[in-house]
Parts: sequence; C-alpha cells; structure tokens
Amino acid sequence: MSEPTEQALSLPEWPDKATVAVSLTFDVDADPSLPGLLGAERVSDERLSLISQFRYSIVRGLPRILELLERHQIASTFFVPGATAEAYPDAIRAIAAAGHEIGHHSYRHLPPHTTDADGQRREIERGLQALSKTIGSEPVGYRAPCAELTSTTLRLLVEHGFAYDSSCMGDDRPYLEQAGGASILELPIEWHLDDGAFMFSTLDVEGNLEHAGDVLRQWWEDFLLAAEEHRLITLVMHPEIMGRGSRLRHLEDLIERMKQHAEVWFPTHRQVAELLREQGIHAAAESRL
Amino acid sequence: MSEPTEQALSLPEWPDKATVAVSLTFDVDADPSLPGLLGAERVSDERLSLISQFRYSIVRGLPRILELLERHQIASTFFVPGATAEAYPDAIRAIAAAGHEIGHHSYRHLPPHTTDADGQRREIERGLQALSKTIGSEPVGYRAPCAELTSTTLRLLVEHGFAYDSSCMGDDRPYLEQAGGASILELPIEWHLDDGAFMFSTLDVEGNLEHAGDVLRQWWEDFLLAAEEHRLITLVMHPEIMGRGSRLRHLEDLIERMKQHAEVWFPTHRQVAELLREQGIHAAAESRL
Amino acid sequence: MSEPTEQALSLPEWPDKATVAVSLTFDVDADPSLPGLLGAERVSDERLSLISQFRYSIVRGLPRILELLERHQIASTFFVPGATAEAYPDAIRAIAAAGHEIGHHSYRHLPPHTTDADGQRREIERGLQALSKTIGSEPVGYRAPCAELTSTTLRLLVEHGFAYDSSCMGDDRPYLEQAGGASILELPIEWHLDDGAFMFSTLDVEGNLEHAGDVLRQWWEDFLLAAEEHRLITLVMHPEIMGRGSRLRHLEDLIERMKQHAEVWFPTHRQVAELLREQGIHAAAESRL
Amino acid sequence: MSEPTEQALSLPEWPDKATVAVSLTFDVDADPSLPGLLGAERVSDERLSLISQFRYSIVRGLPRILELLERHQIASTFFVPGATAEAYPDAIRAIAAAGHEIGHHSYRHLPPHTTDADGQRREIERGLQALSKTIGSEPVGYRAPCAELTSTTLRLLVEHGFAYDSSCMGDDRPYLEQAGGASILELPIEWHLDDGAFMFSTLDVEGNLEHAGDVLRQWWEDFLLAAEEHRLITLVMHPEIMGRGSRLRHLEDLIERMKQHAEVWFPTHRQVAELLREQGIHAAAESRL
Repeated sequence: MSEPTEQALSLPEWPDKATVAVSLTFDVDADPSLPGLLGAERVSDERLSLISQFRYSIVRGLPRILELLERHQIASTFFVPGATAEAYPDAIRAIAAAGHEIGHHSYRHLPPHTTDADGQRREIERGLQALSKTIGSEPVGYRAPCAELTSTTLRLLVEHGFAYDSSCMGDDRPYLEQAGGASILELPIEWHLDDGAFMFSTLDVEGNLEHAGDVLRQWWEDFLLAAEEHRLITLVMHPEIMGRGSRLRHLEDLIERMKQHAEVWFPTHRQVAELLREQGIHAAAESRL
Repeated sequence: MSEPTEQALSLPEWPDKATVAVSLTFDVDADPSLPGLLGAERVSDERLSLISQFRYSIVRGLPRILELLERHQIASTFFVPGATAEAYPDAIRAIAAAGHEIGHHSYRHLPPHTTDADGQRREIERGLQALSKTIGSEPVGYRAPCAELTSTTLRLLVEHGFAYDSSCMGDDRPYLEQAGGASILELPIEWHLDDGAFMFSTLDVEGNLEHAGDVLRQWWEDFLLAAEEHRLITLVMHPEIMGRGSRLRHLEDLIERMKQHAEVWFPTHRQVAELLREQGIHAAAESRL
Repeated sequence: MSEPTEQALSLPEWPDKATVAVSLTFDVDADPSLPGLLGAERVSDERLSLISQFRYSIVRGLPRILELLERHQIASTFFVPGATAEAYPDAIRAIAAAGHEIGHHSYRHLPPHTTDADGQRREIERGLQALSKTIGSEPVGYRAPCAELTSTTLRLLVEHGFAYDSSCMGDDRPYLEQAGGASILELPIEWHLDDGAFMFSTLDVEGNLEHAGDVLRQWWEDFLLAAEEHRLITLVMHPEIMGRGSRLRHLEDLIERMKQHAEVWFPTHRQVAELLREQGIHAAAESRL
Repeated sequence: MSEPTEQALSLPEWPDKATVAVSLTFDVDADPSLPGLLGAERVSDERLSLISQFRYSIVRGLPRILELLERHQIASTFFVPGATAEAYPDAIRAIAAAGHEIGHHSYRHLPPHTTDADGQRREIERGLQALSKTIGSEPVGYRAPCAELTSTTLRLLVEHGFAYDSSCMGDDRPYLEQAGGASILELPIEWHLDDGAFMFSTLDVEGNLEHAGDVLRQWWEDFLLAAEEHRLITLVMHPEIMGRGSRLRHLEDLIERMKQHAEVWFPTHRQVAELLREQGIHAAAESRL
C-alpha cells in the first residue's frame, strides 16, 4: 500500500447559485433471496412473511418515495439489480418515467468480493443487459452490492464505459478511485449515511430499529458540514427501510430544513458527473456519459 | 417471482365515525421452552430463573394488561399457542371471559418454516383442538410463531376456515396474501411495531432493553400517519415484555394520546374481518367467520 | 408445567411510615476469569488490561460506592463469590464493617445450570465456608451467578438454612419460588433493573455502553410504579460497571429524587426477610435467620 | 491473584494553575488488514471499498484533526503502528512536525495476547525501528493493540526504556501496572472513553453508529468528575472514526465547554510522565524519558 496522493477533485460550481449538493440515492433490492442481503443460503419460496417484508419495497415504499420526490421536484438515483428489474419491470420503468436515474446495482446482488473474475463479469454484463432492456438505455453509474467494489469490478466498469462508481469511502469529496492502473470517478458514500446501518431488521439478520428521527439528526449535522464546505453529500436509502412506516416523514422534514438552511441542488449522480465534465474537472475518456 | 399486482383492499368505513383503527394484539407465549423463543434446544426444567421470567407473563403481565384494557374499554386479540392454553387454561379463559378474541398461535410455537408439511398440519390441528377445548369455540384468526407464515400453512388456514392471518408485511393496509392459488385476508404487521424487536432480553438471547418511551415514540408517529390515511394499524406485544415493569404506563399514555388526537376505533382483528365482510370488501367463501 | 397459583406474599408494612422499599444490591465479581463472566475459557494471567478492568471494581468502584452509601446512610446487600472473598478479604471485610449485608454468590461464580448436582453442592458449601471465614458469620441470602437458580441449588439453599434467594423473576413482589416440593422466599430481580444488561463491555464480550442517565430513567419510572403499589424494588449493580466513571453520579441523583418523591426505606435484603418474619407473612422453618 | 495494594500515585500539581488535565489521544490504524481490526484473516487487496474506508483516516480524518488541534493549540499523543508509519511516512511526519507526540502502537497491530513471547518482541522491536526511522526519535510511550497489554509485553517495555503504558484500566488515576516483578507508569484508559466502542462499523464487524453528541455527553460527565477530583482524563479516538463526518464538531464543542468550565491542561502523555518525574512522584530508573 503506497502513500495516498491527494485524490480529491476540485469542487465544481453548483448550478443556480446553489452552495451545496445533496444526492438522495435509493438501492432497490426488494427480494430477500438476493445474495448479500440475508446470508449465503437462498430464501425458500415458502417463507411468505419474509418475502412480503421485502415486497413492501415495491408495493408501498417505492410509490411513497416517488410521490415525495415529485412533491419536492427532486430527481434521484435508484440503483437496481438486473434481477429486480426483470421481476418488477413496471415498477422500475415507473421510476425512470418520473425522471429519475437508474443506476447499475449488479445482476443478482452478488457482492463482488464473494465471487471470481468471471462471476463479476457476469454480474456486470447481465445487469447491463437487464437494465437496458427494461428502461431502454444503458446506465452510466454503478453501486456495488454491500458497497464492496473490487479492483476487478472497477476495471469492468471502465471497460464498459461507466461514468462513475458510488461504493467507496476514501474521501467525502468526489475523487478518483484507482486500482491496477485503472481509475473511475467516485461519488463516495459512508456507512453512517446509509439507512441500512441503522434500521434493517429481519428474523434472520438481527439489526437495529433506531428511530428515524435520531438517524436523520446525524444526517442533518453532516449536511451542515457539507454546506459549509460547499460539498456534495450522498445519502443511501432503501425503499424497504426508509419507505416503511412514518420514516419518510423524517426524510421530508430533513429535505425541508435543508432547503430553508441553504440554496441546495438535489442532483442525480449522473448530473454530478456531467457537471464535472462540463467544468473540465473530470471526464473519463471512454465513458458513455 | 412475478410482478405484484396491487393487492390492497379498499379501506372500510370505520364504525362510529372513527377515522382510524388501532388493533392492540398480544402474543401469549409464556414458556421459554416453546420452540422459536430461545433457540432449538429444550430449556431444562432446572432453570428456574429463566422459567420464572416467562411465568411472569401469566402471573403479573397478563392481569395488568387486562386491567388496562378494561379501564379503557378496549377489546384486543390475544394469539395463544395451544400448549400455553393447556398449561394455563384459567388464565386463557380469563382473557376470553373479558371479551377479548383468542387467536391461533400454533400448538407448540414451532415456526412453520422449520418443519415439514406434516409438522405444520399437526401444529394447526392440535392448536385448534387445544384452543377450542379451552375457550369453547374455534379461533378464526392466526399469527405464525416468529411471524413466519409459509404457503403450506396458508393453505392449511384456508382448509380449516380461518378468516384472516396476521403474520405478513407486504402492505400497511389489509390485503390478500396469496400463495399457490390460495389466498387469505392479511391484517399485516411490521417488525418496528413489535415490542419484542426492542425489549426482549434473556441470558440466552441477547436482545435490546430500549426504553419503552422511546419505542412508543415510533409507534405514535406511525399512528399519526395511519390516522391521516384512515388506516388500520396493528401493534404486536407480549405480556412478558410489555407487561413488565412500568412499560404499560407508556402504552396507556399512547392510548390516551391517540384518543385525544382522533376518533379511534380499537377493534379486535376478528371485528376488522367482520367489518370487511359486512361492507362487501372481502369475504372468504369457506371462512368460519 | 402446572398453572401457577398466585404465589405473591402479602406486602408488609414498611418501617418508619415508608411507603416504598428500595434495595440497592451489588454483585462483586471482580475477576474476569470467574466462570460465567466472559465465557467458558479461563482468562490468561497474561491479559493485564482485561484483569485490570475488573480489578478496578475493588480498587476504585467499591470505595466510591461505600462512600456514596455512607453519605446517604443506606445499608445494601453485596453478593460475593467465595473466591472473590478469598482474593480480596480486606475489601470484603470493609463492606461488612460498614454495616452492609454480605450475600452468597457461589464459590467460583459457576452458573448452577452449567454443572451437575455435585458441582452445585461444592459451589454452595465452599462459598459458605469462604464467606464465613472472611466475615465471621454465615450469609443468609443467595444470588445465583448469571441469575440462573436451579431446583437443585434451591434445595441446597433450603438444606443450608438460607432465608432468601434473589435470582428469579416470577413476580415483582416477594414470593415463594418453588421446585420439587421445596420453596424459598424470593426477593425478585428483573433484567432491565440490572446495570450489566446495559453497560457491560469488554474486548471479549461485546455489550452495550448506554448512558447511565438513560438507564436510570427506566429505573426511575419503575420506582414510581413500585411507590404507587407500596412494593419493594430491587436494583442489581456491579462495582466494575456502576462504579466506573461518572455513573455513580446518576445513581446518587436517582437516590435523591426517590427521597424527594416518597418516604423510602432502603433495606438490605436480610432486613426485608426479617420484616416478613416479624409481621408473620413468611418465616421458613429451617432458616438461619 | 493477591489483594491489590493501593497502586495509584499522588496526583501532581498541574502547570499554569490548571485544575484538571485532559489527554486527547488518537490511534492511527488506517489499514483494515492490520491484525486485530477486522478479525484474523488478511483483508484482500481486492476490497477497494473497505480499504478506502480506512484510507479516509489518512486522507481526510487526520488533516481535519490536526487542523482542530492547531486551532485550539493542543498537543496530543498519536499512537501509530510501525507498519502504518512505513505505509504513510509523510502523514506521520506531519503529525510530529505539528508538535504532537508519536507513541508506539506495535508494528503490525498484533494484539499481544494473540502471539507468543517472540512475536511480542518482534512487534515491539520492529515497531520501535519503524517509528524511529520515520520520525527521527524513539517513542517513549506505548498503547497495546486492542488495549491488551500482557505481562510479557510489559517486561519488553521496561527492557526498552519506555516511560509509560496507556492500555490498562485498573484505576482512573495514573498508577503503576505491575506484573512478574516489573512495573510501568500506567496512564489508564476506559472502554467508555473510546470512540471505537460506540461508532465503529464495517461490513465485516457489526458495530454501533451512535450519535457523536450522545457519546460525548458521557465524556463530558466524566470530565466533570475528573475536574472535581483534579485528575487526568484520557480520551481514546481514531481518525477513521472521530475524524469522519461531523463528529469532530462534537469534539470541538466538548473542548470548548471544557475550557469554559475549568482551567484545563491538555498535555501529551509524555508531558504527564515528565511532570510526574519533575515533581518526584514517579521516575522509572531505566526510562528513556
């Protein structure tokens, strides 16, 4: 491991006099039998309760989220496994139709570090195929299942012309994640800005059930710091988590307080990548952007 | 997995100008040696402390709960394993005598997904027998141990004329849970509305001991959302958990705040199923209702 | 398991017009190599940090607690394993010399349900011997390691003339814990009134580090209920936990608020047993009391 | 285990009329493949996300911390594994150049109790070599990886002329930690004053993500007690934890409140050891101090 050179990119000027950028992103997993969600073993079709807990994501969580974003005129990025797009094509098309970005979230939600190079290639290529078929265009951004990008998958992203990744945590500013000579624009995330680290609970995976108001208190404070530093801040959410119960009320409250506090730009991740290219800060040669 | 069609039923008009319905439900497990409570192994009769921790449910928790419900004139649904009814017949009859509904909660609290079709049949049929013998009538509602309904058990419920299940989480409105061509009225639950997810702790099962006031703050917010949407909200509680210490004070406080906030109907689950039938929203052909 | 008959004893009249009784009890374990504290394996003498974490109990926690009790003129019950009394005789004698009760807490802190009848006998008899030799008199009360009383150990307590046990949770009022024809006065405890369930953390045993103020908020509410019901409430604490850092400030604050709220009697457990005998509520024939 | 004699040293008079001393200390681990951080197995170079989570420590956490300390004119002690110094020499030299103390934190972060005497010697000697080469002088203080000092490593510290250890928890005042006839000045720590016990979370190690404000509320109360007792209090932090997100805002708030409350001395641990020597309270014969 060599000493890291400073990798952060210059911060762009945000559009419309905004002084801070907030990306609301959602990972739409929806099916408890996807790998990496509930352990190695396949969830039996018999387990109706567990399956219904995740189906809520599509039936109830997603429509509530889309309605909230519509009301606030915010475009978000939804990272979707290819298998989920095949299982719920109408739901995924409804996301795209509402003006949101669909990002690549693997095919079967197989965490890259749990499979070999061939397996990783299959996940990327089948995921691309399934998403392109569902929404009619190729996604340009990627988030690894379980936030576990590998150097093998990073090279696959470059090979397939992806414009950005959003799975790493090496900075809180956009930067270049590098491995084996390849590099990609990284729009970083953090565990404490992920709803799953606070409120994911099933019979199989003992988790937390923290009060959403307490979770978003942390997010609010991180937003204040980002606003002072004129940075981008990315929130990671899941319709089966943040879309359940009254939690979206807290998210809406957070959005409203953000707007009152500063001029906020709520971009998709794709819009951030485009802005960086337009302002000459970063443009990957081979990107499909 | 095929794309879910919208399964939610129309919301009924609640009786007496109520704008929201709140079902307080209690699972009366009472015995730490029941499967699914403390792991696979049978609890030794030697372990007096552990046994006494659960016996509190019958000796102290249940009377306190009945007194609270009596004071507020609320009828609740108590889901009881057949084996518990056999061990504590007087306690279970006292629940029924106070006007509450007794629901089916298996015979030995064996989670359906941990046994085969024969085992599931035995749990349903012996449970029906034990409960009918104890209270003199057949229960019409079911909650799976550990909230793990299977398609096999769903078919058994239909075969035996059950009117509803309350173990799944696919919506926050009454809906039809479907599997293998069979379907049943689902009065859904959610992990974050279950006291066991926050306050269950023994020497064997490390759990949480959250402050009941903090837990019910979440429930209050979910109630507010349900009230706005004129929905039913179902709380899942256990006499050995919510009936211990001063936690019932917080439940009583919640009930009082609910009443002040809105016209609330506090039905049993059976009453909800009857209302749906009366208003032509849903009536299962074979139901014993 | 037969249906429990009501086992609670009548509540006594508390002395000096007190309307509620609060027993502060402390388990003095002090040595991480005692069984049941950190798992099955013996802690190596090499692990100085871990050993020092528990030694704090004797060096710093205990003196702070004794000073606090002295300042408030409260007599408490300290449950001590025989091996701890042999390792720290001066510290244990100092507790007794300050007027507190020394209760039996086994010899080697071996949880009764993890050993056979012979092992349980050795724990009781060697513990009695070690404690009697250290403090010059025989303890009359017992608390099982890990709060795991067995019927075998209950019979041993009766055989050796113990006046009470304080390890079970079958009621929140003094009652008779019964097994195999034997019975003993039970001064019950509850997990959520035990500091170890909230604030025990080592490298080996991942635990919680809740804020003592939040923990004692729960205890305060349980005290309020006990005061309304004129009951005894028993708190379980450990010098290595409650005696660390500023936690005793919260305990002192709790004591002061209790005193302001009601006429409180702070008895040792032995005093409670004596009062029950004096008022004709319960006197075991063979007790050494 | 023999009864502990009182080991605490007299408290020194703090310089400049200070009434309390606060040592802010930081463990700079930075690499998830160091032993003791994420379990026994080596982290694969492939896992870019996990590696980036720790690299943040050097890229972003450390500069933020140095800036905060500079602004408040506080000198701290940074405990650094030799391997980290070799991987990030510029970052570690920048710490020293800013006037902070560099302490010894092993070579490969191998917890002493997990290896034999030879392994422990290698960790001490290679660590000394690597740190001396990086910063041009030999560290005089030591903190064991995972806070697991052993008697073998204690003797190695004495043999190599270390002035103090900061890994044990036997008192909340400076004291002599003793084993096998050797002894060393101990500047003690406590788990509940360690940010890692509250806010360490990766995909591999499920941890907590408590709100920093809640954590520092505990630290504030412990500071108040230390101030009353005119003691030293030592906080243990990690750039990858406390340096992430807005947590440093809470640390800065704590520092400011401390300053307002009392005359506070914020020394390095080396300065504390020197003061104890100057005031004749403790001076190890063989120390390199």
